[in-house]
Amino acid sequence: MKKIAILGFGIVGGGIAEVLEQNADQIEHQLGEKIEIGYILDRLDFKGTKYESKIVKDIQTILDDPEVALVAETMGGLHPAYEFSLSALQAGKSVVTSNKAVVAKYGATLLQTAKENGVRYLFEASVGGGIPIIRPLCDSLAGNKISSITGILNGTTNFILNEMESKGASFETALAAAQKNGYAEKDPTDDIEGYDAKRKICILAALAFGKMYPEEAVACEGITNLDLRDVEILSDIGAKIKLIGHAKKTDNRLIMYVRPCVCLADNPLASISGVYNGIMVEDNVLGQVMFYGKGAGRLPTASAVVSDILNILISPSKVDLISFQTGNKEELCKDKSGKHTFYIRMEQEPVGYSYRALNGAYLVDDISRNEIEEKWKPTAYYQVL
Amino acid sequence: MKKIAILGFGIVGGGIAEVLEQNADQIEHQLGEKIEIGYILDRLDFKGTKYESKIVKDIQTILDDPEVALVAETMGGLHPAYEFSLSALQAGKSVVTSNKAVVAKYGATLLQTAKENGVRYLFEASVGGGIPIIRPLCDSLAGNKISSITGILNGTTNFILNEMESKGASFETALAAAQKNGYAEKDPTDDIEGYDAKRKICILAALAFGKMYPEEAVACEGITNLDLRDVEILSDIGAKIKLIGHAKKTDNRLIMYVRPCVCLADNPLASISGVYNGIMVEDNVLGQVMFYGKGAGRLPTASAVVSDILNILISPSKVDLISFQTGNKEELCKDKSGKHTFYIRMEQEPVGYSYRALNGAYLVDDISRNEIEEKWKPTAYYQVL
Repeated sequence: MKKIAILGFGIVGGGIAEVLEQNADQIEHQLGEKIEIGYILDRLDFKGTKYESKIVKDIQTILDDPEVALVAETMGGLHPAYEFSLSALQAGKSVVTSNKAVVAKYGATLLQTAKENGVRYLFEASVGGGIPIIRPLCDSLAGNKISSITGILNGTTNFILNEMESKGASFETALAAAQKNGYAEKDPTDDIEGYDAKRKICILAALAFGKMYPEEAVACEGITNLDLRDVEILSDIGAKIKLIGHAKKTDNRLIMYVRPCVCLADNPLASISGVYNGIMVEDNVLGQVMFYGKGAGRLPTASAVVSDILNILISPSKVDLISFQTGNKEELCKDKSGKHTFYIRMEQEPVGYSYRALNGAYLVDDISRNEIEEKWKPTAYYQVL
Repeated sequence: MKKIAILGFGIVGGGIAEVLEQNADQIEHQLGEKIEIGYILDRLDFKGTKYESKIVKDIQTILDDPEVALVAETMGGLHPAYEFSLSALQAGKSVVTSNKAVVAKYGATLLQTAKENGVRYLFEASVGGGIPIIRPLCDSLAGNKISSITGILNGTTNFILNEMESKGASFETALAAAQKNGYAEKDPTDDIEGYDAKRKICILAALAFGKMYPEEAVACEGITNLDLRDVEILSDIGAKIKLIGHAKKTDNRLIMYVRPCVCLADNPLASISGVYNGIMVEDNVLGQVMFYGKGAGRLPTASAVVSDILNILISPSKVDLISFQTGNKEELCKDKSGKHTFYIRMEQEPVGYSYRALNGAYLVDDISRNEIEEKWKPTAYYQVL
């Protein structure tokens, strides 16, 4: 019997309990023994439920129990999630989390603390919900030189874009539908402004390139200004606008942004619809690899946490190939002068450039953001991936 | 310095040497030391190349060197690849391989031998080329109950189907194009008859469901009888015919087959074109997850072998959650009576069924193979996924 503790018994924390129960036989088969939830730290008392007897109010109770080998932090927010994780690691307990805010801000410190204490800090659930992405990136692609990561990292905005495209809905109507379906929160800012995707691309870039950059330094544009007209014009050629998180290694710098971009019909990211996520990784030997699945949701996210729990309990002292330092924001590049193909909605013809005319817009090759802004100040323009 | 040996210095074996060289700094960064190819077992002498001094002719030389911690078997064929792998494991050396024939036939024995000798046997490269699929399946989904695996597992046939669809080429013309491009061998039987895909679905099913079935017991239909007419009729509705390997757990049995199936436009497998592979895994908590990438090729396949090498050298005694027994073929089900939606090309209307009429064919709901055969003996019919 292995004893664990859960910090925060909300959506994900409760989901962990559910997955552990639902898959108990499979987990026992793999681990050779049962996993028991020893403690649940929460403000609520869960009176009358089977969890009532496990509820504790003081983290110290958990830290003081030598039988607890592992702590799952699913509290959300930075504080005290960070402090609790840190003290658990210092007390010689491995920590797993779904808390991307903590990973993005304190991941480097927590990984270092884990290492110093001979325990592990894993966060598969922090990116891509249940999609296995962090472990494959760190284990399977460990020996490869990753050149770029490009992903649909936020299911809420992908659902909204999908509604606009498939139903001709305006952004406002699509957002309301997402809220009605439980895919968007009452305050959807984090999703629709791209902040959630930004944290995730920061985490992926840290794993791939070794440095975690402060999220506020990353170029970020959400989907709130998206006009249905552009969605429709692109739809005529089977292309789609997606909110993309992107990180690409150049010589000394890292291009990193979250922005709406155009995926042409033959781009595998174009076919990722609804609340699904897709993460495309490119390296020097594999070429492109993509990971696809449900990017959010109670059970998928909990399942990713449980996979970390199981991996740690089976190999408590495995050396994880996960480490990164804090990066200097001067190394980040907003890619204003990089030449790409752009979708540009404007009336005048882009004379002097190679282009393809669409119904009211153009796909213009080999042009930079700076050039577009200087020359035309168009109604809307988006990079084509 | 870690010393390894390569058995068989052909396409994949040579690719391993190339990846180890190309990514030497990244690998050394991860491992903390260099990897050295100590021996290469091959019939050829590679005279005048930098590998000449490493060539040996007798496996015993490798087995006798206590410095060799790991052997990469990339010989192809069953014998002596199996015997060499077995004796390496017995000599206390971990073995990695890209050889799907050996894994499909002797995997259970080799895994058991590895366990008994405290070493590891890994075969990430045996399915999906460079796509991380085996490790995610075993590590990331370890605690989940997988219900089905559905994949485009063979790049050659996917390229051929793509040529037929996008260029209106006949099967013969498309095959010739695949051969010209180096995607199909001179004798393409293994690919076009589905045998290669069959081995791969056997391996994936063994990992997901715990039993390896003899490949000859699996229902298998290749793409040689595919008529361009069906490809065209389906193309009108954005649907595609793909060669699918499928394994699905039912109560006591396992449905397993390799067959051409129809992927409708909204199925993520429909958008997988050219020599790419896509593997969709479904389980009880994650829902659908898909892994996508280049399913074959020198460097992608070699890269998967190198990822196994690196993982073993970093954690030589990690307990792998990989094990399966030999399955009884009576447990396999060809799914002749299961009800699905089928694409059926025939003249008469499928009266009494819910259906959608296409241009010269029908999509008929809730019908089984047996029923179709008994009622209509149609020109062609394919299950819709």
